[in-house]
Amino acid sequence: MDFAYDDRTVELRDRLAAFLDECVYPAEPVHAEQVAAAGDPWSRSPVLAELKAEARERGLWNLFLPDPRYGAGLTNLQYAPLAELTGRSPHLAPEAVNCAAPDTGNMELLAEFGSAAQRDRWLKPLLAGEIRSAFCMTEPEVASSDAANIATRITRDGDEYVINGRKWWSSGAMDPRCEIFIVMGKTDPDADRHRQQSMILVPRHTPGVTVRRGMTVFGYTDAPHGGHAEIDFTDVRVPAENLVGAEGAGFAIAQARLGPGRIHHCMRLIGMAERALELLCRRANERIAFGRPLAEQGVVREWIAESRVRIEQARLLVLKTAWLMDTVGNKGAHTEIQAIKIATPAMAEWVIDKAIQGYGGAGVSQDTPLAGLWAQARTLRLADGPDEVHRASLAKRELRRWPTPA
Amino acid sequence: MDFAYDDRTVELRDRLAAFLDECVYPAEPVHAEQVAAAGDPWSRSPVLAELKAEARERGLWNLFLPDPRYGAGLTNLQYAPLAELTGRSPHLAPEAVNCAAPDTGNMELLAEFGSAAQRDRWLKPLLAGEIRSAFCMTEPEVASSDAANIATRITRDGDEYVINGRKWWSSGAMDPRCEIFIVMGKTDPDADRHRQQSMILVPRHTPGVTVRRGMTVFGYTDAPHGGHAEIDFTDVRVPAENLVGAEGAGFAIAQARLGPGRIHHCMRLIGMAERALELLCRRANERIAFGRPLAEQGVVREWIAESRVRIEQARLLVLKTAWLMDTVGNKGAHTEIQAIKIATPAMAEWVIDKAIQGYGGAGVSQDTPLAGLWAQARTLRLADGPDEVHRASLAKRELRRWPTPA
Amino acid sequence: MDFAYDDRTVELRDRLAAFLDECVYPAEPVHAEQVAAAGDPWSRSPVLAELKAEARERGLWNLFLPDPRYGAGLTNLQYAPLAELTGRSPHLAPEAVNCAAPDTGNMELLAEFGSAAQRDRWLKPLLAGEIRSAFCMTEPEVASSDAANIATRITRDGDEYVINGRKWWSSGAMDPRCEIFIVMGKTDPDADRHRQQSMILVPRHTPGVTVRRGMTVFGYTDAPHGGHAEIDFTDVRVPAENLVGAEGAGFAIAQARLGPGRIHHCMRLIGMAERALELLCRRANERIAFGRPLAEQGVVREWIAESRVRIEQARLLVLKTAWLMDTVGNKGAHTEIQAIKIATPAMAEWVIDKAIQGYGGAGVSQDTPLAGLWAQARTLRLADGPDEVHRASLAKRELRRWPTPA
Amino acid sequence: MDFAYDDRTVELRDRLAAFLDECVYPAEPVHAEQVAAAGDPWSRSPVLAELKAEARERGLWNLFLPDPRYGAGLTNLQYAPLAELTGRSPHLAPEAVNCAAPDTGNMELLAEFGSAAQRDRWLKPLLAGEIRSAFCMTEPEVASSDAANIATRITRDGDEYVINGRKWWSSGAMDPRCEIFIVMGKTDPDADRHRQQSMILVPRHTPGVTVRRGMTVFGYTDAPHGGHAEIDFTDVRVPAENLVGAEGAGFAIAQARLGPGRIHHCMRLIGMAERALELLCRRANERIAFGRPLAEQGVVREWIAESRVRIEQARLLVLKTAWLMDTVGNKGAHTEIQAIKIATPAMAEWVIDKAIQGYGGAGVSQDTPLAGLWAQARTLRLADGPDEVHRASLAKRELRRWPTPA
Repeated sequence: MDFAYDDRTVELRDRLAAFLDECVYPAEPVHAEQVAAAGDPWSRSPVLAELKAEARERGLWNLFLPDPRYGAGLTNLQYAPLAELTGRSPHLAPEAVNCAAPDTGNMELLAEFGSAAQRDRWLKPLLAGEIRSAFCMTEPEVASSDAANIATRITRDGDEYVINGRKWWSSGAMDPRCEIFIVMGKTDPDADRHRQQSMILVPRHTPGVTVRRGMTVFGYTDAPHGGHAEIDFTDVRVPAENLVGAEGAGFAIAQARLGPGRIHHCMRLIGMAERALELLCRRANERIAFGRPLAEQGVVREWIAESRVRIEQARLLVLKTAWLMDTVGNKGAHTEIQAIKIATPAMAEWVIDKAIQGYGGAGVSQDTPLAGLWAQARTLRLADGPDEVHRASLAKRELRRWPTPA
Repeated sequence: MDFAYDDRTVELRDRLAAFLDECVYPAEPVHAEQVAAAGDPWSRSPVLAELKAEARERGLWNLFLPDPRYGAGLTNLQYAPLAELTGRSPHLAPEAVNCAAPDTGNMELLAEFGSAAQRDRWLKPLLAGEIRSAFCMTEPEVASSDAANIATRITRDGDEYVINGRKWWSSGAMDPRCEIFIVMGKTDPDADRHRQQSMILVPRHTPGVTVRRGMTVFGYTDAPHGGHAEIDFTDVRVPAENLVGAEGAGFAIAQARLGPGRIHHCMRLIGMAERALELLCRRANERIAFGRPLAEQGVVREWIAESRVRIEQARLLVLKTAWLMDTVGNKGAHTEIQAIKIATPAMAEWVIDKAIQGYGGAGVSQDTPLAGLWAQARTLRLADGPDEVHRASLAKRELRRWPTPA
Repeated sequence: MDFAYDDRTVELRDRLAAFLDECVYPAEPVHAEQVAAAGDPWSRSPVLAELKAEARERGLWNLFLPDPRYGAGLTNLQYAPLAELTGRSPHLAPEAVNCAAPDTGNMELLAEFGSAAQRDRWLKPLLAGEIRSAFCMTEPEVASSDAANIATRITRDGDEYVINGRKWWSSGAMDPRCEIFIVMGKTDPDADRHRQQSMILVPRHTPGVTVRRGMTVFGYTDAPHGGHAEIDFTDVRVPAENLVGAEGAGFAIAQARLGPGRIHHCMRLIGMAERALELLCRRANERIAFGRPLAEQGVVREWIAESRVRIEQARLLVLKTAWLMDTVGNKGAHTEIQAIKIATPAMAEWVIDKAIQGYGGAGVSQDTPLAGLWAQARTLRLADGPDEVHRASLAKRELRRWPTPA
Repeated sequence: MDFAYDDRTVELRDRLAAFLDECVYPAEPVHAEQVAAAGDPWSRSPVLAELKAEARERGLWNLFLPDPRYGAGLTNLQYAPLAELTGRSPHLAPEAVNCAAPDTGNMELLAEFGSAAQRDRWLKPLLAGEIRSAFCMTEPEVASSDAANIATRITRDGDEYVINGRKWWSSGAMDPRCEIFIVMGKTDPDADRHRQQSMILVPRHTPGVTVRRGMTVFGYTDAPHGGHAEIDFTDVRVPAENLVGAEGAGFAIAQARLGPGRIHHCMRLIGMAERALELLCRRANERIAFGRPLAEQGVVREWIAESRVRIEQARLLVLKTAWLMDTVGNKGAHTEIQAIKIATPAMAEWVIDKAIQGYGGAGVSQDTPLAGLWAQARTLRLADGPDEVHRASLAKRELRRWPTPA
C-alpha cells in the first residue's frame, strides 16, 4: 500500500496546475462576458478557443483517453488527479484540455467500437477539438434506467436505417458546434432484454431531426456540457454503415461507456469541492462581520474542517476506485463505482453549500462560480441514475455476503 | 389554547384556494410561455394581469395590509394561512392578489410613515397594482446586516437631497413596471449609530440613476420579486419632501419593515413546501420504477412522512409567531421571528430537495416548479440576514436566561 | 386560534414548577446515593417516598387521569405542560406526582375497562401510589407491532384461566414494589385477527411466574419505569374474573392504552430537552476553554439556537395533538400522534447530544443526568413501534390524499 | 499509488481473522456470563485469560509495538487492518492479543522513555499481559486539553517525589489487575508553558492513593479499558527514580503518546462499524416484518449502502494517515490524525445507530453488542479532545494556506 502519486502523474499535475493558474482562472471573467455579449447562452467563447490552442501546445490534451493511439495513454489512477484539477474550473478547463463530457465518453465509444470509417469521419475532429458531439439515450416519460423501456425505434430499410423517437437530456446537442449524435434505439424489440438495442450515428443536420429545446438545470443552460436537449427523430434516415458495432450491441456499448463517465464526474467533483473550499477560506480570511473576520468564527471553522475531512475521504475512495478499474477492470470495480457515485456528489453539494453561505448574496449570484458549481453537484445526485437506485443495488450486494434463511 | 382558524380566515382561505384551483394553477404554463415569448426574463405576462383583475373582483386583494383604510384589515394570524396559499404558486399568486414582496413591505412603509402627498403619489397606484416598487438598502462590499456600514450618502442641498452610492440586491428594480425606489442612506454620519440613516423616495427615471444589471439567483432572474438589481446613484437629486419621515429615522423605519417581511416569507415557504410535497406524492403514486410505484418504496415514504412532520411543526411556529406579533407586538415576537427565519427556509429546502429527487431530471428542469422553489428557499437562508447571524443572536438571549459567573 | 394556556393550567404549572425547584431537583443527588447504597439497581429511594407525600399534600397527584372520579380531571391539553415539567427530572418527578409510566397507562386501563372488583383491588392502591404495576405485551422472537403474532396463550379451564408464554420488555416488573401484571395473550387463535387477544390480571407472586432478568438500556436498568423484564409464564392459573373486559377485547384495550401513552412520553421528552438545554446554557456561561467561555464560541451558540428552535416546534406539535385528542378523539388525532412519535424523540436526542458534547466527560458519566436522558430519548425512537413503522404508516395516509392511476 | 496490503499484513490478517472466528466470538457470551457471575463489573473473565494464552501461542501478541525488541515490529500501515479486526470484538479481542488501551500507549511510553529499571519492573509484565496499567492525566474542573491547566503537583523532597492532586478519567485504574499508574503533574509551575509538566510512575498501592470511584459511560463501566477512575493523590511518596525521562519532559511525552493512541482508536472503530454492519445485514436477511424481510425494505437498504460507503471512506483515510505516520512521522501526519479523529467516531456512531434501529429492543439491550459499541463510539467524539477542538485546529491550518489581508 502506497499513497504517493507516480512521477508522470506529479509532472502532469504540476503542468496542468500551472496552466490553470496562468491561463484558465484569468479567462473565467472574460468568458462570462463574451458569452453574455454573444446572446446565445449555449455558445462558447473565443477565449475558450485560445485556451484550447494553448493547452494543446503545452501537451495537455486528450488526457482522459487510455488508448495511446488516440490520447495520453494514462491509467485511470493517473488521470484522476488531472481530472480533479479540471473540475476546479468546470466551465472552461475540461473543454480546454479536450476532456469534457459528453465528448469524452463519445470518443471512447468511437475509439473502442467505431469502424475505421466512423473513426476517421467523427473521432478525428473530436480528438482535434474541432466539433462536439451528443449522446442521446434518455427518453421522457419512461424510467430510462431500465434500457428495456427505450421506445425509440431504429428500423432497417434497404441500405439505410430509419429512426423514430423522442429523446431528452441529450447532453451536448445544444452546443452550436455539435455535429454528431450517438443515438440509442431498438432494432429488435423481440430479442433478449439486453440485445434489443443498437447505437447509431446521426449527423445533426439530417432531415427529420428537430432539436426542440434545451432543458435547464436550476435555471442554468449547462453550456459547458453542451446543454441538454429534447430532440425529435421523425423518419430520420442514415446509411446502414452508421451503426456502431453490430445490431443488438447497444446495451453493452452503453454500459461500457457509463463506468468511466461516472468516475470522471466524481474526479471533477472533487476539484469543484476544492475550489469551493478555497473560495470559502479566502472569503473567511478577508470578510469582517461584527468586528472579526469570518475565519475566527467557530461555525465557519467547523465548515472548513468538515469540508476538508469530507473531501479527503471522497478523494481516496475515488482514487481507490480508479486503481481497481485499472487492476481488476470496470466490472470488478462495480461496487466502488456505485459507492463514489453516491458519496461524491453529496459531498460536493455539502461543501459548496457552505461556501455559498459564507459569501451571502454573492454566493447565489453570478459573481462567484459557487451557485453554478452547486447546480452541477446537485444534478449529479440524479444524472446517470439517482442515488437511491445505486444505494439499493449496492446494499443488495452487501446483503448477499451474509446468510439468508432457507 | 385553541388550534382552530376563526371564521373569517376559513372563509377567505376557501375563497383563495378556489381562485388558485380555478385560475392560478391553469395559468402557470401560459405565463411561462408568454414570458419566454416576450424575450425579457424580467417581464411579467398578460395572463398575470388577467389574474389580478379576477382576484380583485373576487375580493382577494391587499390581504396583507392590517390597516383597514388601505387593505383587508387582517391580523397576522388571519393572514398567515392566506399567504401560505399564495406560496403554492409563488410566481403568480402573491402578485395576483397584490401581496408580492417587495411591494408589500414598501406599501406598509408608505402607509405607516409616508406623508399624505407620498401616499397619494405612490401608495395609491401600488395599492391598485398599477406600478411596482423597489427597496434599496443592501450594498456590495460591506456587511449590510450592520446598518452602520451603509456608505450611500443623502445630502441636503437647498430644497433638494442629493444621493450618491451604490446598491445591490435592490429587489423589484428589474421589473419594467417598477417606478419608485425607496433608498436608504446616511444623512448624518456623525449622529448616533442608529440615527445616521434616512429613507428617501427616488423615482426610477431620475437622472443619475443607473440600473447596472440584475443579480441572478442560481441561474434564475427571480422576476416574481421584480429581480434584484445593482444600481448606481450618482448625484441624484430629488425634492426634499421625498424624505420618508424625519432625518435620522431610516434605521427605525427599516426595522419596522423587516419583521412582517420575514414572517411573510416564512408563510409563503410553508406553501412552497406543501406544493412540493403534493407534487412528490402525485409523482410517487404515478411513477413506476423497477416494477412498483415509487409510493411503495420505503425511502420515498420516509421522505413523505418526514416532510409532513417538518411542515406541520414549522407552520405551527409561524402561526404562534403571528399570534405573538398580534398580541405583544413585533418586538415581543423578536425571538420567534428569528426562530421561524432559521427554521422555515431550511425546512422548505429539505422538502423541495426530496421532491426534486423524486422527479429525476424533470425536477431540476423547467418542467416542474421545483428547482425554482428550491432556489427561493435556499436564498432565504441568506436574505434578510444569514441563518448564522440569527442563530447567534437567538442564542445570546437564551444564554442570558441563566447565570454568568461574576 | 389562541396560543395562551388557560388559567388552571398556568396555576398548576406554577405550583408544579415550585415543587420541582424546592423539592425534586435537590433530591436528585440524594436519590442517586440512596439507590447506590441499597445495592439493588431497580430499587427506589426513601427520598422518593418523601417526595410523593409532599406532592400529594400540594395537590399535585394523578394529574394525568382525565376521569375526575379518579384523578385531576384535566384535558390532554391541560396536562401537557405539566407532564413536560415532570420530564425535566424523569427519574423522580413523574413518580413523585404518581404520573409515571407504565402505571399511568395501567391505571387508565383499569379505570376504563376494569370491573368494580378489579378497580377496588388494584386501581385503588395504584392511585394511592402504594404499589406499582407492569404491562406485559411484547414477546421475544416475533415482531410484536403486529398483534396477530402474539404467541402467549390464555386458556379457560373451569373457573380459571391458564397462561403460558414468554414476554420481554415488560416495563415495571423489575420494581420491587410491583404487585400486578397486565398480560396480553390469545384466548381464541381462530377468531378474527383483532378479536383473538384478551387481557388478564396476574398477581406477581402467582406460581408459574418467573421474572428471568431485567433488560438493560444502554447500560442502564431504567428503574424509573420499573425496568423492563423478561418473564416466563408457565401454567399460571388465575381466577376467571381476572380477565379485563370480555374475551377478545384485548387488542381494542391495548390500542386505547397506546395513544395517551405515546403522547405522555412526548410531553416528557420536551421537558428532558429543556433540561438539557438549560444545562448546556449554564455550562456555556461558566466553562472557560481557550480563554473564552463556551458561550462566546460560535458552534455552541449554533447548538443552543437550533435546540431552542427545535424544542419550540416539537412542543407546538405535541400541544396541537393534545388539543386534537380532546376535540376529535384519539382516532381523529392518529396521524398527529404518529407525527409527534417521530419528531419528538429525535429532537430530544439531538438536543441532549449537544449538551453532552458541551460537558465533555461529565456529559457521558453519572455526574450529569444527560447520558441517562439521552438513553431514554434514543430508546423512544424504538419503543411503541420504531420510527420507520410510523413513517411508513403516516406516508400511506398522505399518499391517499392524491390520485392513483386506475 | 497502490491500494493492496503487503504480504505480511495479509498473512497476519488472515491468522487474526481465524482466531476471532474460532476463539473470540464464541467466547463473547461466556465472558458476559462470567463477569455477571463475578459480581464486580470491572473484573475480567477466566475465558479472557484463556484467549490470551491462545493468542500468544498463535503468534498474535503485542502487534501494536513498532519496536521489534518488544513487539511485532509492524508499521502503522501494517498494524491498521489488524487493529481494525480487534475492534470487531472490542470487549475481548484487543486485550486477547495484548493490544488494549490504555496499556498500549503506556507500553510505548515505557519502551521509548522509560529507564532500564522501569522497563524491567513494569514494561516486562505489561508485555507479558500479566498486569494492567493506568494513565492519569485529565483532571476534574479544568479544561485538560490545555496542559497548562494541570493542577496536580509533583514536588521533589530528597530522594523522593511527593504527589498531590486529583485526577479523573484515569483509564485502566478500575481493573483489579492494574498495578501501575503513570501520573502527569507539574514539577515546575514557573517554567515555560510546555516545560512545567513531568510524568511519574506511582504503584497503585502506594499510601495516599485513593481510587474514589469509576466513572460510567452511558451506564457502562467500560471494563475493557479498565474503567475510568477518579483518584486522589494525597502526599503520595515515590522514589525519585520513578520519574519518566527528565523533569519538564511530561508534555512532550504526553504528545508522543497521543498520536498513536488516537489512530489505534480509529482503527478499532472501523472494526466496530464493520461488526455493526454485519449484524445489521444478518438481521435484515432474517427478520420478517409486515410480510417481508427487512432486507427488502428500502430504508434498511439505504442504511446498509450508506454504511458501506462511509466505512470505506473512513478506512482509507485511516490507512493513509498510518502511511503518513510511517513516512513523514507523527508530526507530519498531524492534520490527518485530526481528520480521522473527527471523521471516524462520527461514522461509527452513525452506522451503529442504524444497526440498533434494525434490532429494535434487542439493539439497545445486553442481547447484542450494539449499545455498548455505540457508547464507545460516542465517547470517542469527546475523549482525547472533543470534535470541536480538533475541527477548530484543523480549520486554522487550512485557513493559513490562503492570504490574509495585511
